[in-house]
Amino acid sequence: MSAASATDALLIRRASETDWPGIWAVFEPIVRDGETYPLDPGLDEADARAYWFAPDKTIFVAEDAEQGPETKIVGSYYIKPNSTGPAAHVCNAGYIVHPAARGRGVAQALCRHSIEEADRRGYRAMQYNLVISTNDRAVRLWQHMGFTVVGALPGAFRRPNGDYVDALVMYRSVIED
Amino acid sequence: MSAASATDALLIRRASETDWPGIWAVFEPIVRDGETYPLDPGLDEADARAYWFAPDKTIFVAEDAEQGPETKIVGSYYIKPNSTGPAAHVCNAGYIVHPAARGRGVAQALCRHSIEEADRRGYRAMQYNLVISTNDRAVRLWQHMGFTVVGALPGAFRRPNGDYVDALVMYRSVIED
Repeated sequence: MSAASATDALLIRRASETDWPGIWAVFEPIVRDGETYPLDPGLDEADARAYWFAPDKTIFVAEDAEQGPETKIVGSYYIKPNSTGPAAHVCNAGYIVHPAARGRGVAQALCRHSIEEADRRGYRAMQYNLVISTNDRAVRLWQHMGFTVVGALPGAFRRPNGDYVDALVMYRSVIED
Repeated sequence: MSAASATDALLIRRASETDWPGIWAVFEPIVRDGETYPLDPGLDEADARAYWFAPDKTIFVAEDAEQGPETKIVGSYYIKPNSTGPAAHVCNAGYIVHPAARGRGVAQALCRHSIEEADRRGYRAMQYNLVISTNDRAVRLWQHMGFTVVGALPGAFRRPNGDYVDALVMYRSVIED
């Protein structure tokens, strides 16, 4: 199967609270890993749920139609305003893909969907506040998806091994020129 | 009187909720002006108070010892973690100075105090997420105080006149090298 046909089997839809077990199955290994999100790797499920389903977030899930109900959800993303008032036209999004579903274009499909969703919601730009510089795969993908590295925050992220590494601010317009 | 001696009369101390009327007298013209904070210029007092006294913020006020009780508070700042978990060692701060007290070194004194406070609290760095690029006075002052422009967010702030202008991410270490 090519990556393209694997992605064709993806359905991206709005999530509801009842999707949490499937989202948590995707999110938990990412939280425990501690290399990509500014979350304590020991975060418990209730706090993880409160984070992902925070009131200012709208959540989507990616379902793989070829999987059974237990493993159907292979990814999720949130979209939310990155700030308020005269800066509320810039949104923020975060993505999770199950480690077992990597390399199949799920993150790219979620990102593309989120940019379209941002446009539908009337945002003018999308900003990632904290892309961990050691997460090469993500940095390259976001660049491929039209994001620019606006700047690097020196030592802004502490890896589980104790190293302080840079975090990147990435940004792209979501309006037509 | 020189700016230096005006600053000498400043007392910077922890704020309590009872300081709100004095803080609001400083904050309200800044909110209404709409040129520097990502807040709706029409924000009402209750929402402004909830913003300034948000649970994650620690608040300080600058008092001018030469003023009477009604106008004693000439400035205020908050300090808070800018993120969570493995990025919680970077703090964020925001400053307000009464328009009538500008040019006397109050903002600089608040900034210096906040950097020292960040160090006392064990932070490693301080980040400003949204310095409006048209706010020349602030940009120059933060640079003077050791902050670097990490990057510019294109069109991230909408001025009251409808113009979209860039916002700057600024950052500095607060630990000794």
